[in-house]
Amino acid sequence: MLDKDKVLEALARVNDPELHRSLTDLKMVRDVQIRGGKAEVTIALTVPNCPLKDQIESDVRVAIAALPGVEQVFVHLTAMTDEERKALFGEPKEGAAAQYNHVNRVVAVMSGKGGVGKSLVTGLLATALAREGYRVGVLDADITGPSIPMLFGLQGPVEPGPVGIRPLQSQTGIKVISMNFLLASEDQPVIWRGPLIGKAITQLWGDVMWGDLDYLLVDLPPGTSDASLTTMQSLPVNGIVMVTTPQSLAAMVVRKAVHMAQAVKIPILGVVENMAYFVCPDTGKQHFIFGPSHAGEVALTAGAPLLAQLPIAPQVAACCDAGEIESVTLAEIPALLKAFIQAMPVTERRPT
Amino acid sequence: MLDKDKVLEALARVNDPELHRSLTDLKMVRDVQIRGGKAEVTIALTVPNCPLKDQIESDVRVAIAALPGVEQVFVHLTAMTDEERKALFGEPKEGAAAQYNHVNRVVAVMSGKGGVGKSLVTGLLATALAREGYRVGVLDADITGPSIPMLFGLQGPVEPGPVGIRPLQSQTGIKVISMNFLLASEDQPVIWRGPLIGKAITQLWGDVMWGDLDYLLVDLPPGTSDASLTTMQSLPVNGIVMVTTPQSLAAMVVRKAVHMAQAVKIPILGVVENMAYFVCPDTGKQHFIFGPSHAGEVALTAGAPLLAQLPIAPQVAACCDAGEIESVTLAEIPALLKAFIQAMPVTERRPT
Repeated sequence: MLDKDKVLEALARVNDPELHRSLTDLKMVRDVQIRGGKAEVTIALTVPNCPLKDQIESDVRVAIAALPGVEQVFVHLTAMTDEERKALFGEPKEGAAAQYNHVNRVVAVMSGKGGVGKSLVTGLLATALAREGYRVGVLDADITGPSIPMLFGLQGPVEPGPVGIRPLQSQTGIKVISMNFLLASEDQPVIWRGPLIGKAITQLWGDVMWGDLDYLLVDLPPGTSDASLTTMQSLPVNGIVMVTTPQSLAAMVVRKAVHMAQAVKIPILGVVENMAYFVCPDTGKQHFIFGPSHAGEVALTAGAPLLAQLPIAPQVAACCDAGEIESVTLAEIPALLKAFIQAMPVTERRPT
Repeated sequence: MLDKDKVLEALARVNDPELHRSLTDLKMVRDVQIRGGKAEVTIALTVPNCPLKDQIESDVRVAIAALPGVEQVFVHLTAMTDEERKALFGEPKEGAAAQYNHVNRVVAVMSGKGGVGKSLVTGLLATALAREGYRVGVLDADITGPSIPMLFGLQGPVEPGPVGIRPLQSQTGIKVISMNFLLASEDQPVIWRGPLIGKAITQLWGDVMWGDLDYLLVDLPPGTSDASLTTMQSLPVNGIVMVTTPQSLAAMVVRKAVHMAQAVKIPILGVVENMAYFVCPDTGKQHFIFGPSHAGEVALTAGAPLLAQLPIAPQVAACCDAGEIESVTLAEIPALLKAFIQAMPVTERRPT
C-alpha cells in the first residue's frame, strides 16, 4: 500500500538538475500527504522563480506516479528562505559554485591584438558546437570592453542561484556570462586596475553556476596582461584558439600572444584568420582589403594548424550588431568546427 | 684682443639644444686655446654619439666665429665619463627627464575597443601635424600590444641620453617611444599585471627625453583599465580623441570610454570614425561593410564634434604594414587636422 516512506524513497532518487543532489538530500521535500491513491507533496525550490522549476515539478510527478497504487499526484512549489538556504549551502562565499560545476573542456580565444574578431570567433564556435548538441558556455573575460552580450543579444541583470550567479541563456541554449550583465547600464565603464580585473575573471569562473558543460569558451581581451594571465593561471584551460587578421601589424602582436601561451605552457589548438578578404557583392571578386595573409606564418610560430580563414562579410556584421550571431551562416564554419574538434586534446570525460 | 674669457663668454650663450642650459653651465667646455686669431676648443658631449653633436659643434663654431679678431675656429668633441655625468645630473632616477621636457599639449587617442584604428588615427594626426611644422611626439601606451613601431617602420633599441631615454625619430622627425623599443625582440610578450603597465607608462613619459614638443599624442590600448587610468591620472592630458567604427558593438564599448573620460574630467576633443566604408576599386561604389554609421550617436554621447570619417583603404593598410604611415594620403586628412586643431583647448604656450 502507498505510504509516505515510499514517496520519500522515490523523491530520494530525484536529483536537482543543477546541483546533482537528491531533493531529500537538499531538504527540498517539505510535506508529503497520502490519502488513498492521492499523493500531495510540497517542494521548496532553492530560490524563488528557479528557472528549472518546471523540470523539477515534472521529475517529482513522474517519480511518484510510477509508484504502485498512485492515482493522483499534486505537487506544490514553495521556496527556501534565506536562512534555510544558508543552513544548507553555508554563507555565500567565493568560488562556491565551482564545486557543483562540471566543465569538460575550457578553451580560451586569444589574439593579443584588439578588434581582430576574437568575440566573433568565440560566438561562431559556441554556436556551431551547440548546433551539434554540445552543452556550451561562454565566459566573456573582456571586463572593460565586452562584446559577447551584444553578439548574442543578451542583457543583464543576472539572477542569483542557490550557490552563485546563473548565467544567461542564449536563443540556442548557450550559457553566457559577461561583466556587462552585472552593470547597471551597458555604457557604464569598468575603471579598474589590473588586480580587480583578474579577480573578476576568477569570479566569473567560480561564482557562476555553469552546471554541466562540454565546452566553456573564454573570450579574452586584447593584450597579455591581467585578464589573459589570470585566465591561463587560474582556470583549467585545455587549449587556446589564436585569432589573427591579414595585417602584418596584427601578426606581430599575435606572435606576442603565441609566445605568452608557450611561456605558460598552454597548447595552442589552432589559428583562425579573420577578415581575410571581402567579396564585392557587385562583381563577386575577392578583395584583399587588409593585405596578403600572414596566417601561415602565425600558424608556423604557434606550431598549430590554420583552422579557418573567414571573410569580411557585411551580413555577418549585421547579424552581430542585431544580436543574432546564432543565425550566422558562413561556408567556412563546418570545416572550422571539424578542425577545432580534431585539434582538442583528448581529455577524460567526467561523469555528469 | 681675443682671449679665453671672451670665448668662454660666447660659449656661455650657447645652449645644449636638448637640455636648454648653456655649455659652460653644463661643464661641457673642457679646453680653450687661443693663438693669435686661432681659437681651438674641446667640448665634452653629455653622452658619446650624441645625435645632436653636429648641431652643438656648429653652434659653438658660429658663436666663436662671431667674436672680433677670430680668424680660425677648431672644435674638438669628446664625451663625459659616467662619473662626470653623474656629478652633473645626479644618479639616474625616475622622472629625471621630465624637468628638461617642454610639452605644450598632450592628447590621448582612445576608444575602449581594440582594432578600431586608434594607432592609425594617432599616426595620421602626428604626420599631419609634423607636415604643418609642429614638433610632434608619439607615446605608445599600448604596452602589451604596440602598433606604433610598425606603422612608423621603427625598431629599437633606444639609446640612453644624459637624463633619460632618447625617443627614436621617424622619417619626418616625429619623436616616438614604445615598449617595443625596449624589448630584445618585437615578438617578445610583455606578461605583466596592471600596476607594472601603469608604471611603464609613467616611465615612457618621465624618463624619456621628449625635449620641446608642440604635441605629444598618446596612443592608448583598448580598455578602461591601468594604461588608460594611469595616462589620464598621471600625465597632463589636455584632451582625448575618441576613435570608433560603424559597428554598434564598437559604439557601445566606445561609449564606456566616453563615460570614463567624463568621470576623470578630461575633455573629449572629438570623435573619428574609422572603417566607415570601402570603395570598390572596380566599380567605385561605396560599400558600408561594417554597417551604417553610429558616429553621430557617439559624438552626441561625447558632447564633441565628429572630426572625420575615414574609409577602409587597402593602400593605407599597405602603407601601414610597410612602416610608411607618413606617406599615406587620404582626402579626409586636411579636414581632420583642421577640426582637430580647432577643437584643442587654448593653452598657455610655454616659453621654449
